[in-house]
Amino acid sequence: MDFDAKRFRDIDPGERVLMGPGPSDVSVRVLRALAAPCIGHLDPSFLSIMDETQDLIRFVFQTANALTIPISGTGSAGMETCFVNLVEPGDEVVVCVNGVFGTRMSDIVNRLGGRLTRVDAEWGRAIDPEAVEKAIRGKSPKILAVVHAETSTGAHTALEDIAGLAREAGALLLVDTVTSLGGMEVAVDRVGIDAVYSGTQKCLSCPPGLAPVSFSAAAVEAMDRRKTPVASWYLDLNMLRNYWGGERKYHHTAPVNMIYALREALRIIAEEGLEARWARHLLNHRAFVAGIEAMGLSMFVPAARQAERLPMLNAVSIPEGVDEKKVRMALLRDFGIEIGTGLGPLAGKIWRVGLMGHSCCPRNVFLFLSALETILKTEGIRVR
Amino acid sequence: MDFDAKRFRDIDPGERVLMGPGPSDVSVRVLRALAAPCIGHLDPSFLSIMDETQDLIRFVFQTANALTIPISGTGSAGMETCFVNLVEPGDEVVVCVNGVFGTRMSDIVNRLGGRLTRVDAEWGRAIDPEAVEKAIRGKSPKILAVVHAETSTGAHTALEDIAGLAREAGALLLVDTVTSLGGMEVAVDRVGIDAVYSGTQKCLSCPPGLAPVSFSAAAVEAMDRRKTPVASWYLDLNMLRNYWGGERKYHHTAPVNMIYALREALRIIAEEGLEARWARHLLNHRAFVAGIEAMGLSMFVPAARQAERLPMLNAVSIPEGVDEKKVRMALLRDFGIEIGTGLGPLAGKIWRVGLMGHSCCPRNVFLFLSALETILKTEGIRVR
Repeated sequence: MDFDAKRFRDIDPGERVLMGPGPSDVSVRVLRALAAPCIGHLDPSFLSIMDETQDLIRFVFQTANALTIPISGTGSAGMETCFVNLVEPGDEVVVCVNGVFGTRMSDIVNRLGGRLTRVDAEWGRAIDPEAVEKAIRGKSPKILAVVHAETSTGAHTALEDIAGLAREAGALLLVDTVTSLGGMEVAVDRVGIDAVYSGTQKCLSCPPGLAPVSFSAAAVEAMDRRKTPVASWYLDLNMLRNYWGGERKYHHTAPVNMIYALREALRIIAEEGLEARWARHLLNHRAFVAGIEAMGLSMFVPAARQAERLPMLNAVSIPEGVDEKKVRMALLRDFGIEIGTGLGPLAGKIWRVGLMGHSCCPRNVFLFLSALETILKTEGIRVR
Repeated sequence: MDFDAKRFRDIDPGERVLMGPGPSDVSVRVLRALAAPCIGHLDPSFLSIMDETQDLIRFVFQTANALTIPISGTGSAGMETCFVNLVEPGDEVVVCVNGVFGTRMSDIVNRLGGRLTRVDAEWGRAIDPEAVEKAIRGKSPKILAVVHAETSTGAHTALEDIAGLAREAGALLLVDTVTSLGGMEVAVDRVGIDAVYSGTQKCLSCPPGLAPVSFSAAAVEAMDRRKTPVASWYLDLNMLRNYWGGERKYHHTAPVNMIYALREALRIIAEEGLEARWARHLLNHRAFVAGIEAMGLSMFVPAARQAERLPMLNAVSIPEGVDEKKVRMALLRDFGIEIGTGLGPLAGKIWRVGLMGHSCCPRNVFLFLSALETILKTEGIRVR
């Protein structure tokens, strides 16, 4: 068969400063762990690595949940895992929607035949607990789902009040922490979260490809009470539990090297300490905001609603008259900086600037601010 | 929060010779590619890497299919992708079952509400086209599914006759090539396969975590004619096509580093050449069989049915009176060699010895044979 193998060169993706909505920069330590020799997924040595990885995931989620594992797919596979294992056709599910990821949750509930109630909020705003209360009044939803950190808008929804409402309604609380985990507090047991998922490529600073998930005893009971089979074989926790739990029964071949990397990324977090890590994210966020405002630009989530701002994902309003794509391309071409643009209704309105995990440092804040200022000036946009 | 970060040491999985049913040994080149800096999944540089990876997957599948991508999950996610996108509730699906992976296909069809017809064959035997013909006579199945290389038994099913039957019946041919791809001919276009999936960790010698898939125009038409949504959001090809195809529309964050590794693993195959690679697998298999028989042991698939033997996965009958687990543990402990045991009805009856991709070399054949001989002698098992 004719095929020119010589046209493919050694991998050389280029040097980037990852300040988009994820992936974030991956440290040399994590890349080195990723490249450790691959061994078998049932090797006793790998089983120990699995145990350690589970302990580390429990630590970062602040949970004692037995069923705490990395799903062999990206954050979206984590989302699907939570819903596909908990929702049966006809189940009542309330989903809070204030961005792309709440919308995605709704889409998944519909595919599974759940009876969906949406609590919609303005994109860029937190979910209002009062709106949730109204929506569930008189209902007994099986699940109440909310996005902790909306990656598409930079909005933070505090979980405590919503958790209380879920408890009162007898609903399982399902939370998306893809962007928050490792960058701000995610206290699964204290808040009372029953099903939670995250991704590796945001504040954990591991390459994309795995989705840490954790389930409370109540969530596991709900799975045990199912009357219909889980629609997905690949994500069926009844079987995954047997591989990650005591029996070690083969389900699918674990993504061995990615698990090495996740273990190392979590170990770095354990060394830094959770509180120190959250404080670092907050500090750099504040420096970032100060710099943006000093330039005469403004944050999309206004100062009056600071608590709704995510520290690790900064939505900056695009100034009037700016060709936003041109600016992003100049950042990438001239400085190797990646940032994100708005999605859906926010396309063209915001830039999304990530300060996540390894990418979250004063160096990047300063670099970004001066690079942006230079580009805007070149474009003839007046900045202070 | 109290947590002892110091108890986690640098990753050190140990040194292994991977001769089980997968993963196989990963070359230094692939590990190095895996550890290249992570960049964004929408970065122009990454989009080129995606294009190249797709070209290389088309090459190894020997297909011109436009819809040819790596799914962000292991081989089993590839299996689920094929079925979840093609099967709607009530669709008639014929699945050939001669081992664990045909059984898994049946399980998935049932979860999706397909009307399943099983064509069962003895485990360790190929699927008999006559049995398939009988099963589909008078039926118009939408899909005929078969496992090319049954990893659980070492059985090879030739595809040509079964493909002819699928064509006559107007069925889409869906084939599992997880273990065969890269180790023996998988000629998607010539044979007329409509939906095919594989895994990265067998004869491609890339770490586990991705599933190359490819779909014919007829399969894509069948997807376009669907009346119900695809049950899985994560594996929905309607959306995945827009990311991997021209539009580059964000679906989920691609597992960037794993795609680097797959590209490099496929590039190595392109450099070696497909025919040379298949010949290497056959040659080492023959040397292996000669050695096994010279020791007085026997292959599970007898010599009279040589065409049903897989070159890359050798099922060896466990001699009478041998504690098979003890032997495997001694191979691992004393020589770092991993091999597999039988699954399901073949547990305790066979060892599964992989000679896949980078693991498939005379050095490993010789090492394994002499290590096994030594261990059996130590155990007091008479070998020639």
